[in-house]
Amino acid sequence: MKFSIIKESKTSASRVCKIDIGGIEVETPVFMPVGTQATVKSLDSDEVKELSNNIILSNTYHLYLRPGIEVIEEAGGLHSFMNWDRLILTDSGGFQVFSLKDLVKVDDEGVQFKSHIDGSSHFFSPEKVVELQLRMGSNIIMPLDEPVSPEANPEQTKIALQRTHKWAKKSLETFKKLKGNIPRKEVKSFNNKDTIERIRNENYHFGIVQGGFSKELRKESVEFICSLDFDGFAIGGLSVGEEKEKTYEILNYTASLMPKEKPRYLMGVGTPEDIIIAVENGIDMFDCVFPTRAGRRGLFFTSIGRINIRNKKYEKDFSKPDPNCDCYTCRNYSRAYIRHLVKAEEILAYRLVTIHNLYFFKKLMEQIRESIKNDSFHDLKKSILETFNKNKEGD
Amino acid sequence: MKFSIIKESKTSASRVCKIDIGGIEVETPVFMPVGTQATVKSLDSDEVKELSNNIILSNTYHLYLRPGIEVIEEAGGLHSFMNWDRLILTDSGGFQVFSLKDLVKVDDEGVQFKSHIDGSSHFFSPEKVVELQLRMGSNIIMPLDEPVSPEANPEQTKIALQRTHKWAKKSLETFKKLKGNIPRKEVKSFNNKDTIERIRNENYHFGIVQGGFSKELRKESVEFICSLDFDGFAIGGLSVGEEKEKTYEILNYTASLMPKEKPRYLMGVGTPEDIIIAVENGIDMFDCVFPTRAGRRGLFFTSIGRINIRNKKYEKDFSKPDPNCDCYTCRNYSRAYIRHLVKAEEILAYRLVTIHNLYFFKKLMEQIRESIKNDSFHDLKKSILETFNKNKEGD
Repeated sequence: MKFSIIKESKTSASRVCKIDIGGIEVETPVFMPVGTQATVKSLDSDEVKELSNNIILSNTYHLYLRPGIEVIEEAGGLHSFMNWDRLILTDSGGFQVFSLKDLVKVDDEGVQFKSHIDGSSHFFSPEKVVELQLRMGSNIIMPLDEPVSPEANPEQTKIALQRTHKWAKKSLETFKKLKGNIPRKEVKSFNNKDTIERIRNENYHFGIVQGGFSKELRKESVEFICSLDFDGFAIGGLSVGEEKEKTYEILNYTASLMPKEKPRYLMGVGTPEDIIIAVENGIDMFDCVFPTRAGRRGLFFTSIGRINIRNKKYEKDFSKPDPNCDCYTCRNYSRAYIRHLVKAEEILAYRLVTIHNLYFFKKLMEQIRESIKNDSFHDLKKSILETFNKNKEGD
Repeated sequence: MKFSIIKESKTSASRVCKIDIGGIEVETPVFMPVGTQATVKSLDSDEVKELSNNIILSNTYHLYLRPGIEVIEEAGGLHSFMNWDRLILTDSGGFQVFSLKDLVKVDDEGVQFKSHIDGSSHFFSPEKVVELQLRMGSNIIMPLDEPVSPEANPEQTKIALQRTHKWAKKSLETFKKLKGNIPRKEVKSFNNKDTIERIRNENYHFGIVQGGFSKELRKESVEFICSLDFDGFAIGGLSVGEEKEKTYEILNYTASLMPKEKPRYLMGVGTPEDIIIAVENGIDMFDCVFPTRAGRRGLFFTSIGRINIRNKKYEKDFSKPDPNCDCYTCRNYSRAYIRHLVKAEEILAYRLVTIHNLYFFKKLMEQIRESIKNDSFHDLKKSILETFNKNKEGD
């Protein structure tokens, strides 16, 4: 993995960088669409290629339960299984497991939990989740961590953080031991076999900084995690239900302590507003389900703010969803038609909204990179915040 | 509407014909994909164009209830609303209304029913459904009829038939009175405005032959309906749950009595086996939800018969869904991957299965037309029946 800084802003921490993994380049700040179950909901691989910047996120917890890592391994890895010849970052599953109601038990060895699909019992250790991700051929591997809720008290947060730190060390040791030693099955995809064969062996490992909403713990976590030999560093545990001001305060503080020479990834964020603030604080990578999950609810992110297409006022509105957009959806379908599809719970609704939203996020990230390069980031930030504060039709 | 016979088989009633409506040509035998709610489930208009033969079916009952005919009228018609610049046949809604549990009352004036969406009360008369279809700009309009269940006794069937005949006359009178006199709103679609403006005024009317499973009543119905000045004739009330032999017997008898110089349409049929038998009996047009509804269940129609992808044996099967197919799905995704998507209830599953199935039906119809042209229909029929009798994985 080659990481290079292309341009640093003079007035903020924002920057444009390049990540190169196995010859596949990703310019940051980048937004990674979420493909939880080895599919970015409703889109085929060609569409995802068009609507992303060469990298998507998938989820170890979900894939482990269904179809099972063995099936993916037999396919020749996750890229091959899902017909995807670009990069994949896999979340460890920590966040999902700790969100389960039927969580059974957590100790220093790992976490026991029950499947949300059939209630069966499973155990994740830091070693195991790294192994699972390596077996899938993930390009960026995340360690098991223990997130805390915004309501956790300082003592709880501290205990969880110490565990997260222990697990981080174990993860890295496992990663170093196993990397390059995973037996691979033949690539079974029908296309791009060569690329996939190459990139499934390009595996890197990021650490996760936790510490809840305590600056002291966040500092402690940065000092610990960023002293380890990870290829990049993520901030976890933000945007989990707390006040925006709190998010921004902790983000600003934490990001400012993190090393410059490696990628910084803010997990699970966010809206256009959150992204622009985070970029200002030096974040390079983002993932979030908003643009892809909004389809069900008919929520469009547009150049004029948020639009909820279910709104009655769009019933006979035959204009484009976003007046300034030339995505496939906006070139072909009116607000009234998409409103009808959403109300009728038609699958095409989901797809048309997702196509637009991912296109919007891709363009947003392009604008952000462009504005950093030509020193106009501040103007862009002002305009994005104004737009999304003015028009925020919810659901 | 121009209808011409291109080739008639010497050994069966099968034939290749051409329907030209407003410059859009449809070669028959043709399969019309079903787009009940102004969308062929999960596909965008470009995909439908690729996977159909210039004509689809939509449904008056559903569109009347949601989004409402007024919205569609305001869009400039159904073609404009759904971004579709080819032909549309609309079903009258009779079949749907008579399938409702909350059907309130039927008499010679029409049928009162309750919406499946919100329970609200509505009334369809033969005059009204023709008017609704004309307002949408449908190219082929179907009259309100009263279907009967396979369990209906001869007396019930006879009463329903007499009503269907009365309604057919009223339909045709309404059609002749209103055609060309419907005020049109501006076409609001973003593309193909000229084509859509032209074809929404190309409206034709088919009659429906009923009569249940009585040859006597079928004969009476053909004599009555086919003496009226319709542009084509449909056979309704078959494939509604009865034994296959009964379907084929009535189909054979009814079709043999129908005039040659107009299109013959078998409503709601069917499987590849049913289609090939019906073509042998001189049927030109088909519609059926099978290929588009099978997605949910992971049911593939293939060159080696029916495949149910949910089957455990496909868990690690990394081959193409159909070994002899070059549709988008078969060029990109394995059985194992699609099985995973179906099991995980992912939207993409629905779409990938639908793409394959519509492609298969389109190719099947091409093969059928080709075989009639070069006098090899009998061989094709034998091969289709063998294939689908050999491999019929159900759901």
